[in-house]
Formats: sequence, structure tokens, C-alpha cells
Amino acid sequence: MDIIWDPQIIETQSMAIIEPYLQGYSFNAPEKAVVKRVVHTTGDPSIIEHIFFHPAACKIGIEALRKATAVFTDVNMLLTGINPTKLAAYGATVSCGIAEPEVVKAASKWQITRAAAAMRLWGSRLNDAIVAIGNAPTALFELLALIDKGVARPALIIGTPVGFVGAAESKEMMIKENLVPYMTIRGTRGGSTIAAAMVNALLYYEGDTEDE
Amino acid sequence: MDIIWDPQIIETQSMAIIEPYLQGYSFNAPEKAVVKRVVHTTGDPSIIEHIFFHPAACKIGIEALRKATAVFTDVNMLLTGINPTKLAAYGATVSCGIAEPEVVKAASKWQITRAAAAMRLWGSRLNDAIVAIGNAPTALFELLALIDKGVARPALIIGTPVGFVGAAESKEMMIKENLVPYMTIRGTRGGSTIAAAMVNALLYYEGDTEDE
Repeated sequence: MDIIWDPQIIETQSMAIIEPYLQGYSFNAPEKAVVKRVVHTTGDPSIIEHIFFHPAACKIGIEALRKATAVFTDVNMLLTGINPTKLAAYGATVSCGIAEPEVVKAASKWQITRAAAAMRLWGSRLNDAIVAIGNAPTALFELLALIDKGVARPALIIGTPVGFVGAAESKEMMIKENLVPYMTIRGTRGGSTIAAAMVNALLYYEGDTEDE
Repeated sequence: MDIIWDPQIIETQSMAIIEPYLQGYSFNAPEKAVVKRVVHTTGDPSIIEHIFFHPAACKIGIEALRKATAVFTDVNMLLTGINPTKLAAYGATVSCGIAEPEVVKAASKWQITRAAAAMRLWGSRLNDAIVAIGNAPTALFELLALIDKGVARPALIIGTPVGFVGAAESKEMMIKENLVPYMTIRGTRGGSTIAAAMVNALLYYEGDTEDE
């Protein structure tokens, strides 16, 4: 067997294999970049039909990163998956509150998940930020409530919470309320690797952000 | 909508929803625990048919953790996803070499991925360890070569590299060579959340490790 060892060749070949799976979809250029990276990270082209974008999501996300926005994540796995070199090159930052002592304490007091408690404690710090939620539906429900109440208004939600208890519902609520731009995976699927792939695709995108 | 905020209730309900999807499969008790956690982390019951276990994998993995084995991972996302409290309770440790300066240097010199270079540099340190590979097929190819050469002999491989260039091939080679116990996702799917779920399922398992 011819094993390919060079990471650049692997990346290039992988993206070339993924490209044909996008045929028949009407994604614009930055959306295509996001979709390809999500397929790359899952190894599963069938995920494409579940990916759903607010029309302004990619443009706003890329521009926010280029203006050194703050990125907030629900879990540390997602934070770890975001390319730190690319993030630093834009002067952007990333934070996760889940292990902070005040978050742990508040979650216990309020009987909610630590990921949701972190959102509530961040509050207006989420203004103009990218909020990436890869795991906890409760974090997305809490974020939507904060937006609803006028407490916070992020630039973009990358919302791909996963699972069978609230995940699909939280994502449909985000789409229906349509309060700020978002990108998501509809249904029960999602996860922090997918959310990280979405953030990284926006970080790696080098072209114009206008639709093509 | 009735939103469930309590993390314990979410976990319990989620596992109850997943349980029926396992009907018709002949997994033993610890395998069931692993499969349920993989479905939980992907939100996708269709993953079940791709999960494949060496018959001794769960027993050996659980017993190794209970004996405070070292866990080695290919990427930091996977390391971050492993429950540190449970790991520490057993006295087990987890390491990832991908960001170590000597690994970065060796990868560049050898023109291989950093994940594969880390495996080669660890060498005999992988003896009796659990090696979890969630991302890089090259790390699994390298590990299999080390085992083949008699350089390293891990207790268990949790091998779920992902993607379209080498992932399926590396996993089929692991199954065919059958040199040490393994658990895997066959085909192109995989990822660090899945590998972390597998490690965590072994950490969380409290029962006897004999087949039921």
C-alpha cells in the first residue's frame, strides 16, 4: 500500500476528494469552504444535507475574525480544536468558561449545565463575538434567551450542539427566531469537531467575503 | 417548549433514548457502554453499524485503566475530551506529543505528520499503554509499523482516524494484522470526539469486565 505521509499532500488530496460531493448544492464560496471542512472532519459526505446557513453567516463571521473578534466556546474540546496560530494572526481570542470556578459554582446553584451557566455569566461580553456551541443544547437555549432579552447580541452563532435531548430543538429555535446570523447542522448530529471545523474554515478563508 | 436544564437528567434521558438502537446487535455489556457513548457524542445511531471491536478490547482497556495505564493520543482535542477526574481517580495519565518542540522538528525532518512523528519518538513508551488515535491515519500506520517491528506493544488501540486519505485503509490494516486488541469505526468516519467517547466509556464502566 502506498501510504501518504506528507500532511500538505494529505490535505490537498482530501479536499479534492470532497469537492465532487458538493455538486448540486448552491453554496457560495465561503460556504463551500465551511462545508468541505465539515466533511473533512467527519469523514461523512452525508452530513452536507444537514448543514444550514443564515445567508449572512460566513461573510459576518470572516469579517468579525479579521477585525479580531472574541470567540466564545461552550466546551474545551472545541476551544482546543480552533487553530491558535490563525486566530493569533488576526489578533482574535478564544475563551471557554466551563472549568472556571465561578461557572462551576453558578451551574450548581442554578441547576443548569456549566456550559449554559458560562453563557449567562458572560452576558454582554458576547456582544459582537462569535459564539461557538458544539456540545450543549442548554448553552444554545441560554444564548437565545440572552439575545431575546436584549442582554447579548453576538455577531454570529456557530451552533452545532449534539444529541437526543434538546439539540435539534435548540437549533430549530435558533433558525426560527432568526435573531442573529448562524450556521448549524440540523437534527441530532453535531459536535465540537464540527463547530471547530466551521470556525477554522472561516479563519482559513482568504478570499473576498461577498457572495459569488 | 419544556427545556431540560439539569445535566444529570439530560444524560439519563439521552442514554434511555439511545438504548433501543442497540437492539439486534450482539454487543457484550462493556461494548454496549462504548457504543452508547459513541452514539451520544455523534447524535447519530447510524454509526453503530460501523463500530468494530476486537473481542478482548473492552476488557483489556478497562483493566488497563484500572491499573493506571498511560493513555497516548494523536491530537490535543482528543486529550481534552478525556475526563480528567475519572482518569486521575484511577491514577492513569494522558499525553499528546503533537505540540512538543522535538516532535515538530522530527516531523519536519521526516516529512511526516506531527501525530506520526510523536508515535515514532514515543516508541517503547507505548508498551502496555492505551493509544487513542482520533484524527491522523498516519499515526495509526506508524503505530502498526512500530508494533510490526517489535518496537512497541500497546495494550489497546482506540483507532478512529477520520477522512478520505488513508483512514479506512489504516483501520482495515489494523483489523487484518490483528496484532493487539483494538476498537474502531470502519470506513472514512471517525474523529477525536468518537475516540474520546470510547476512552471515557471505558473510564466510566463500573461493572465486571467479563463478557455477559
